[in-house]
Amino acid sequence: MGFFSKDIKTLDDLFVHTLRDIYYAEKQITEALPKMIDKATAPDLRAGFEKHLRETEGHVERLEKVFQMHGTEAKEVDCPAIDGILEEANEVSGEVEDKNVLDAALIASAQAVEHYEITRYGTLIAWAKQLGHDDCASVLAETLKEEEATDKKLSGLAESRVNREAA
Amino acid sequence: MGFFSKDIKTLDDLFVHTLRDIYYAEKQITEALPKMIDKATAPDLRAGFEKHLRETEGHVERLEKVFQMHGTEAKEVDCPAIDGILEEANEVSGEVEDKNVLDAALIASAQAVEHYEITRYGTLIAWAKQLGHDDCASVLAETLKEEEATDKKLSGLAESRVNREAA
Repeated sequence: MGFFSKDIKTLDDLFVHTLRDIYYAEKQITEALPKMIDKATAPDLRAGFEKHLRETEGHVERLEKVFQMHGTEAKEVDCPAIDGILEEANEVSGEVEDKNVLDAALIASAQAVEHYEITRYGTLIAWAKQLGHDDCASVLAETLKEEEATDKKLSGLAESRVNREAA
Repeated sequence: MGFFSKDIKTLDDLFVHTLRDIYYAEKQITEALPKMIDKATAPDLRAGFEKHLRETEGHVERLEKVFQMHGTEAKEVDCPAIDGILEEANEVSGEVEDKNVLDAALIASAQAVEHYEITRYGTLIAWAKQLGHDDCASVLAETLKEEEATDKKLSGLAESRVNREAA
């Protein structure tokens, strides 16, 4: 999208722009997760991140399917939001030495990523339905369900054990 | 926090760091919301943003209360996450000409902000409880409740009317 023209004319343009934003974001997340797996100590946290990496690769494929259903080129646009969230995750984890505290920090960072995805998929589903793209909405809803489940799982892991061990 | 030393030693340090992160974020949001109010067209969306601006000013005050309860200086640390989310909000709204589509984009951006706050407050509350700072947890929970209510209200506004008018 250009910086000097107003390239988003319709809700459908906005839908495509946001699809490209989350496509970029999901790809950045597939690059960030292996680093988070390396930093994590608790075996169940590492296993959770590994499972989520495989899911995220599936989310990229689902987005490609949605682009195809919509008849639009699968393209990325810069997403300063996910860049900022991942930059912050990296900065904070670099400040923590203790392994248990680091696990707590990694969970918080992963949940910030999940919440960004939850809000974007929620918006995309609402717009897809409004635009009559029910097929796109239903594929996007599969991913949203997984993101919400991951967020809940991370909360459970933090509250059941990781925070206690960090304290 | 320094860049070359590992300044976060304990879960309490991580709690304070994240408190300072959201303190910075809330202050940035009080600066961003007036610009979003200016751009919004639908009277109920403008009114919703205005109400949320007043609430956000209250969230800043609540955070100052939490710092005081904890016995820590109320200080901000850079928060690349909220900077990225607000930068993206600004970029996208600059690309949209149609007033109805712009309202839909503004709601999506505001919900991305809300979700960042929801995840941070959720984390802070869990850590505060683990650390025995139940007084801090209960003040933070008041804000979380308001952020969740705002997010739901924005979804309702989008789905009941704004998206339809944008389509």
